[in-house]
Amino acid sequence: MGSGTSSCVPETHGTITEIPMITLHTWTTPNGRKVSIMLEELGIAYQVNAVNLGKNEQFAPKFLAISPNNKIPAITDHLTDGSSLSVFESGAILTYLAEKHGRFLDASGPARYKQLEWLNWQVGGLGPMLGQLGFFEKFSKEKSELASRRFIAEAGRLMLVMEAALSRNHHLAGDAYSIADIAAYPWVVTANTFLADVLSKHMAAKAALQDWFARVGARPAVQRGMAIPAV
Amino acid sequence: MGSGTSSCVPETHGTITEIPMITLHTWTTPNGRKVSIMLEELGIAYQVNAVNLGKNEQFAPKFLAISPNNKIPAITDHLTDGSSLSVFESGAILTYLAEKHGRFLDASGPARYKQLEWLNWQVGGLGPMLGQLGFFEKFSKEKSELASRRFIAEAGRLMLVMEAALSRNHHLAGDAYSIADIAAYPWVVTANTFLADVLSKHMAAKAALQDWFARVGARPAVQRGMAIPAV
Repeated sequence: MGSGTSSCVPETHGTITEIPMITLHTWTTPNGRKVSIMLEELGIAYQVNAVNLGKNEQFAPKFLAISPNNKIPAITDHLTDGSSLSVFESGAILTYLAEKHGRFLDASGPARYKQLEWLNWQVGGLGPMLGQLGFFEKFSKEKSELASRRFIAEAGRLMLVMEAALSRNHHLAGDAYSIADIAAYPWVVTANTFLADVLSKHMAAKAALQDWFARVGARPAVQRGMAIPAV
Repeated sequence: MGSGTSSCVPETHGTITEIPMITLHTWTTPNGRKVSIMLEELGIAYQVNAVNLGKNEQFAPKFLAISPNNKIPAITDHLTDGSSLSVFESGAILTYLAEKHGRFLDASGPARYKQLEWLNWQVGGLGPMLGQLGFFEKFSKEKSELASRRFIAEAGRLMLVMEAALSRNHHLAGDAYSIADIAAYPWVVTANTFLADVLSKHMAAKAALQDWFARVGARPAVQRGMAIPAV
């Protein structure tokens, strides 16, 4: 089921230990890259199980046992007591890893809920809307003028919201780099590259957004995370 | 800007105190009802600020200062030290209230992340996809056969995922009733009522899902929360 899991020499990243602590089930999508960026930022050992969506590997019973919504990413965390814990949904995985390692999400207080606001904004808004735009503009052979118009307008609205937030603060949820930025970044990559022709008008003249994009994209962990899985 | 905030006798729910602890900015939508259900379940004092989406009140500067994504629900929590904290995005609000009151979300351990998985599944999947279906099937005068087909299929897939989850467990994330159920319930109301004609095939023969729907819907707090705002 993809590279990594069945190999005798698993593809490992971060600090190498004999048994990688975490298996990341992922593919070459923005949602997958949220989690590979997070794992790289944490600098912890993990191995990659590439779930090839082009081959419908997300419907394999073994994967559905981990991720019953048949979506990547998911993780399996091999705990020190010998048990394992799997988590699906990128927003839940980011929260799990942040809380386990005490990084990129405040443990309490107002800052925590600003970070969760913008994480949820990405999970419920930026991701689904750009995902639908990608379908109607790029993946579908059939076209719908109504759907294209709707999702371009919604993407444009979301970029204005993001520009306003980043004009107020250095990062999406405040001064600190957090899981909200990690969640949003791969989707802004998609907006600036895969969907660039469709969204050029909405991405231009967004100085605060593009400055944030450059700063986040310059982080070595982000660059490493965006290259996962290597297929 | 709607009923509740400007009144000398604010509309209060739960235990009545002189100054309600929380102002809920909401409207008659599934996302708004997630939070009114949660507040009713907690039994805490709150007042309702009805943000009339039909009158574009979500774009008022005063509301945007609380909810910069111009969406309901949002809350303003009036804290005992005299300060206030506002939170937008229903998933973040549910998490905030659950953590503040120590209910409907485990504080740690595997159960917590099962609950966050299914909360994120609702926020990123069930909500956006049924929301889009509502737009293309009900709200838009123009129609798109491609979009209708896509979102009906996606809604059907999500209902199968939910049926499978509820066949394994009494509630969405396990045995316990949690914020995952609170988040999903108002959207299943929409699927069973507003979108019933469109989704009848997908809602039928879902015994575990409809059993859960009846059990959750029988909770007095859920019934009270579904009647908010009273407009």
